[in-house]
Amino acid sequence: MNQLPIINPSQEEEKIASFIRGVLREQNIKKVIIGMSGGVDSTTVFYLLKNSIEPENIFVAHLHYFDSLLETIRPSLEQANIPETNIYNLSITNIVDQFKKIAIISNENKVRLGNIMARVRMTILYDLAKKNHMLVSGTEDKSEFLLGYFTRFGDEASDMEVIRNLYKTQVYRLAKYLGVPESITNQKPSSGLWLGHTAEDELGFSYQEADTVLYLYYDKKLTVEEIKKMNLPNAEKIIDFSLKNNFKHKVPYLIG
Amino acid sequence: MNQLPIINPSQEEEKIASFIRGVLREQNIKKVIIGMSGGVDSTTVFYLLKNSIEPENIFVAHLHYFDSLLETIRPSLEQANIPETNIYNLSITNIVDQFKKIAIISNENKVRLGNIMARVRMTILYDLAKKNHMLVSGTEDKSEFLLGYFTRFGDEASDMEVIRNLYKTQVYRLAKYLGVPESITNQKPSSGLWLGHTAEDELGFSYQEADTVLYLYYDKKLTVEEIKKMNLPNAEKIIDFSLKNNFKHKVPYLIG
Repeated sequence: MNQLPIINPSQEEEKIASFIRGVLREQNIKKVIIGMSGGVDSTTVFYLLKNSIEPENIFVAHLHYFDSLLETIRPSLEQANIPETNIYNLSITNIVDQFKKIAIISNENKVRLGNIMARVRMTILYDLAKKNHMLVSGTEDKSEFLLGYFTRFGDEASDMEVIRNLYKTQVYRLAKYLGVPESITNQKPSSGLWLGHTAEDELGFSYQEADTVLYLYYDKKLTVEEIKKMNLPNAEKIIDFSLKNNFKHKVPYLIG
Repeated sequence: MNQLPIINPSQEEEKIASFIRGVLREQNIKKVIIGMSGGVDSTTVFYLLKNSIEPENIFVAHLHYFDSLLETIRPSLEQANIPETNIYNLSITNIVDQFKKIAIISNENKVRLGNIMARVRMTILYDLAKKNHMLVSGTEDKSEFLLGYFTRFGDEASDMEVIRNLYKTQVYRLAKYLGVPESITNQKPSSGLWLGHTAEDELGFSYQEADTVLYLYYDKKLTVEEIKKMNLPNAEKIIDFSLKNNFKHKVPYLIG
């Protein structure tokens, strides 16, 4: 079949829980920290974590450049009984603004600024993890991964990637099954790199479209020519976008 | 033979030049940026770059938390005819100090502070690279790599690793052949993470000792027991150090 498979959410949940527990066992670490933006990916990963390990071992960092969105995240944290002391609600504005000075970046350079924000978040997450002997949970989905729609050493930096095998539309299905609030599943995906940003505007195609095409190209190994003949919306644009970012999966080149 | 091979510096230089040119060709990029600390690894990589590509395509960033060491680097830059406008001599102090505030780090937490410095450098290097369409050259040697003696997403972050196949003692040999100034090859290796820091003090063994043992363990595949019988100085300590950091090569764990 050439259709993106419909996942079985309860099977996925179990598989991921056993993966998470296995990593923690192998590394002999009890605590996990996750950066939560308020988006569907990180919230879904949070739900997966809380179904896998004890709440006192889950740490949440909301690292905001603009206003804090902690209040949209809080209901999820409360129903999971995450202790207040496990929650870091930190503004990265002063740090990022120092980078803006030294690197001479204006607010117009949205991509450069977005990369800096993602890397500042990584740096803080890893510092918290080092300080408290935690693993950093990643939140990258398969669509973002294959599109290369991430900041290297930024949002992609982690110790374990728990939803990297799920396309964005599959993550939504899992999120609904897990009970992620509608206030989160109903919002448009955004990397939060600038105000009013939506991922689909920036990409120029929808995740529904992307997942269909990426699945045919990467999982079913159809050629670009074969996919073009199927008249799927934005197919060429989606493949171009993915191939253009393919270097992110090739680097670093290593001398043999 | 169980002795670390003596490299042929001129063959290594040619092999690395062809590697560098190959990567630039494949990525269709002309410019390279390198973070230069003033140490032997980054200076050697600089010499390799200048023997491989035109000086106007080489960019150098000296990103210092303490006093600038640009004057120790400058002779190398001058003899290579690097244009003044290709040199970034930037203080990261204000940025790092903002991290110290938010993460509540005192100067006593040398490892955490060192990690933050390394990641701040990465963030600036990648911003410069993005702005000017450059590749980031790595400077990691094989000893540091196998010991796990690096900051993930920090000094190990790069687009190409040009001396990752050479142990530290081999890098010294190559450095001398290339004409790296004695003021640089005579100083003790240091990650520069704090003042007065030397790598060998922090590690508790010398690179000479480490290279001998790492070569036997990783290249010659001798067992720990076999190596112990050889009565090499600090052998057990070296293998322990390497294995303790082995997780750095395993993460991120990816769900299947």
